[in-house]
Amino acid sequence: MGSPAKRVLRYEVAMPVDAFLADLSAVLPERALVREQERVAPWLTDWRGRWTGASKALLEPGTTEEVAIIVRLSGEHRVGLVPQGGNTSMVGGATPPADGDAVLLSLRRMTRVRALEAGSAIVEAGVILADLHAAAAASGQRFPLTLGARGSATVGGLIATNAGGTQVLRFGTMRAQVLGLEAVIAGGLVHDGLGGLKKDNRGTSLDQLLIGSEGTLGIVTAARLRLIPAIAERGVAWVGLDSAEAAWSLLGQLEEASERVEGFELVPAECLASVLDHVPGTRSPLEQTHRWNALIEVTAGRGEPEPPTATLERLLAPALESGRVADAVIAGSEAQAEALWKLRDSISEAERKRGPAAQHDISVPPAVMARFMTDAATRVEHAFPGTRAFGYGHLGDGNVHFHVRAPAASSRDWAESGEGKAVSRLVHDLVTDSGGSISAEHGIGQMKKDELARLASPARLQALRAIKQAMDPRGIFNPGKLVD
Amino acid sequence: MGSPAKRVLRYEVAMPVDAFLADLSAVLPERALVREQERVAPWLTDWRGRWTGASKALLEPGTTEEVAIIVRLSGEHRVGLVPQGGNTSMVGGATPPADGDAVLLSLRRMTRVRALEAGSAIVEAGVILADLHAAAAASGQRFPLTLGARGSATVGGLIATNAGGTQVLRFGTMRAQVLGLEAVIAGGLVHDGLGGLKKDNRGTSLDQLLIGSEGTLGIVTAARLRLIPAIAERGVAWVGLDSAEAAWSLLGQLEEASERVEGFELVPAECLASVLDHVPGTRSPLEQTHRWNALIEVTAGRGEPEPPTATLERLLAPALESGRVADAVIAGSEAQAEALWKLRDSISEAERKRGPAAQHDISVPPAVMARFMTDAATRVEHAFPGTRAFGYGHLGDGNVHFHVRAPAASSRDWAESGEGKAVSRLVHDLVTDSGGSISAEHGIGQMKKDELARLASPARLQALRAIKQAMDPRGIFNPGKLVD
Repeated sequence: MGSPAKRVLRYEVAMPVDAFLADLSAVLPERALVREQERVAPWLTDWRGRWTGASKALLEPGTTEEVAIIVRLSGEHRVGLVPQGGNTSMVGGATPPADGDAVLLSLRRMTRVRALEAGSAIVEAGVILADLHAAAAASGQRFPLTLGARGSATVGGLIATNAGGTQVLRFGTMRAQVLGLEAVIAGGLVHDGLGGLKKDNRGTSLDQLLIGSEGTLGIVTAARLRLIPAIAERGVAWVGLDSAEAAWSLLGQLEEASERVEGFELVPAECLASVLDHVPGTRSPLEQTHRWNALIEVTAGRGEPEPPTATLERLLAPALESGRVADAVIAGSEAQAEALWKLRDSISEAERKRGPAAQHDISVPPAVMARFMTDAATRVEHAFPGTRAFGYGHLGDGNVHFHVRAPAASSRDWAESGEGKAVSRLVHDLVTDSGGSISAEHGIGQMKKDELARLASPARLQALRAIKQAMDPRGIFNPGKLVD
Repeated sequence: MGSPAKRVLRYEVAMPVDAFLADLSAVLPERALVREQERVAPWLTDWRGRWTGASKALLEPGTTEEVAIIVRLSGEHRVGLVPQGGNTSMVGGATPPADGDAVLLSLRRMTRVRALEAGSAIVEAGVILADLHAAAAASGQRFPLTLGARGSATVGGLIATNAGGTQVLRFGTMRAQVLGLEAVIAGGLVHDGLGGLKKDNRGTSLDQLLIGSEGTLGIVTAARLRLIPAIAERGVAWVGLDSAEAAWSLLGQLEEASERVEGFELVPAECLASVLDHVPGTRSPLEQTHRWNALIEVTAGRGEPEPPTATLERLLAPALESGRVADAVIAGSEAQAEALWKLRDSISEAERKRGPAAQHDISVPPAVMARFMTDAATRVEHAFPGTRAFGYGHLGDGNVHFHVRAPAASSRDWAESGEGKAVSRLVHDLVTDSGGSISAEHGIGQMKKDELARLASPARLQALRAIKQAMDPRGIFNPGKLVD
């Protein structure tokens, strides 16, 4: 121990990162290379505290040119780069490996709104979602994607994970909002797709390739994003239903009759009870308890002839008459609409207060979702006595938050225990059997890498690995995530 | 000449294809392997007669499993496969190389509609677009993409080229219609994305990777495609405008005011005159001649409260009052609507009758399109005296059909002459300088491969080549197209 030979060996192993940082310090502005560990440390652990990594420095480039220099030199030294935006990954996607061989690359200083036009904005990767919403609103427009982490999640991270949220039903995921990307790929080459061409058939789309690639194929530095006219008005309804199938059929009828159905969130009685028990200031919107509930939002832009509450009345009246909907209430004011949404948005908080549980970010084909929720819950509860399982969420997207409550008296970290993990494997097996995805919104990151390798088709694995090798021959982009 | 040694050499060179076909004949149904040259020959030349290739056989698999066998064996023998649908490529994308080392793979026998549901259909690659329209209509729905070649173009080809058409303004290109793909990739592995998951974040999307890849990364065998509710009614207007900029600003106002603007086609006075001169049964829709015209289509689904002609009146009235629109007429019947569309749809035919010309399938960022059309026309006419240049087409998509008429008394094949090619290079240079694409709709194929290599950014070329190498390590997928 401590022999000279060993010390030399250790020194050589550490060399690439040190040499990389030394080269960078010669060409980057001082502000872009942070070496003080107390400034690096806060970004080494994900926001939920599940993963912690190491990095000898924090790179904070302010321009695309600086990102290009970083990528070029990291390739020459074969040093990994871990891109990070708001550090809100749910799957450890922005946490560096523990060995300290890779370096954190934060895009947070790239916060310029380069252009804001009718129909689109060009924003840099570090722009926070809430700031994008505000910039769009200031121009009488809106950016039609939102999610819980909007106060910290950045555009770059949203693109790298193809983020979803509550408006996917009408407007699609992040993929549908991206009109063009700027990104730095291997060798420090800059791909400039910010022109926003609506038609461009020069081979496969590099923009599409990078969306959802979790920083493993290149570094997104800016994007042209779609903006749409601001909402003038919204109408929100809460309906009680006897079955998930009834909800599915109602959604189909609504979508056929109007293009303005923007949200359709399914809430089982369990979830509503949990919210009413644990979240102060909430009350049941309907007099009776219904096995299932749906929160429906319809919007109207300026100049639309029919107000959205009238649309809701027109759409729901026949369903109420025929008994397909058991009961319904339409919010009479924006305050009432907010109150209905609060019931939906408080489910996670209420369930956390209620006790330990394993959550699953999964999707199944929309047409089988209603049945999946019932069948999978039965299977899980049968296999793991004492658990209670149910799905809730964005029905039209087929994206269930599949929630399994731990048996009574389980420890707080039950989800990470042997039983909790076995539950998750079963859920993932059932999802795969139904033709679904083990990651609907959050990505694979570190957390689901083994499950992806276990459950993905040979075609998907072959393609993902081949593309990774092709786009990142020196293994510098977000090492240890998604695929090896 | 004719020495035994040479004969042996020729035999060895020919070996891979022959051995491949011999292996195939042992495992494929007889119907799937056509060796009679008289049955192969019709498919060796593109529909416009610009490229002719050679193939020792025509593979006509009837199932995905047969395609998988073909791909696996072609990889083992390193024999190229040239996928072909309706053979309607504009860029030689479906014509085999002349050396006969590759084999034609027709998807035309795969014509099953595997499923037809509310909101989507699963169709095989060989389904013809017009048949898809009919199947959708029979279920009270529509497939929102159409184009001139709809009577022969197939779903597989539309996907492989990310086809566009006249409804892109509202509904997007083929990319936006694809909810999931089934495809055979290297090694004969089958990617099954037909579940139609609306949210699926398991790394970069294989579906997106294959769309627009022109058969160079794998063979699309089926797709789940989006269907939307059938149109109940449409309203069509023809407006006269003083400038392309006025048209652009009108389009912006319309799109802001209504989501139902489905078509906005720009027609310069030149084109309209050409149609009125050369196409029987056409007449000018407005009393006076206007420098520019726009054809506008608005649709309404069942249950929409406002009829589309009323929407057009509401939208156009303020523009007419303020003088931003010089004149306008709204079709009073479906027959009048058809007559207006005929003016637009007859432009190609009229221009062909008028004389030789070089056409360019290009796009520029929508915001600069109006200016591009004017500036580029001036540049071309100045550099090539006697030519007459103008753009027409899908204004909102930024996709100009940029048309350059040959000087008087030019030969019929002027577009392929030295001058014609020089014109095209200049147009492509101007497009590139404007941040545009040298291929908006038709793809690269054989025709634009050199121009892509000349004009694409280093980042694009590096990525396209790396992905090609990764997904097709044995060089079997559509050799000689797109990139080497």
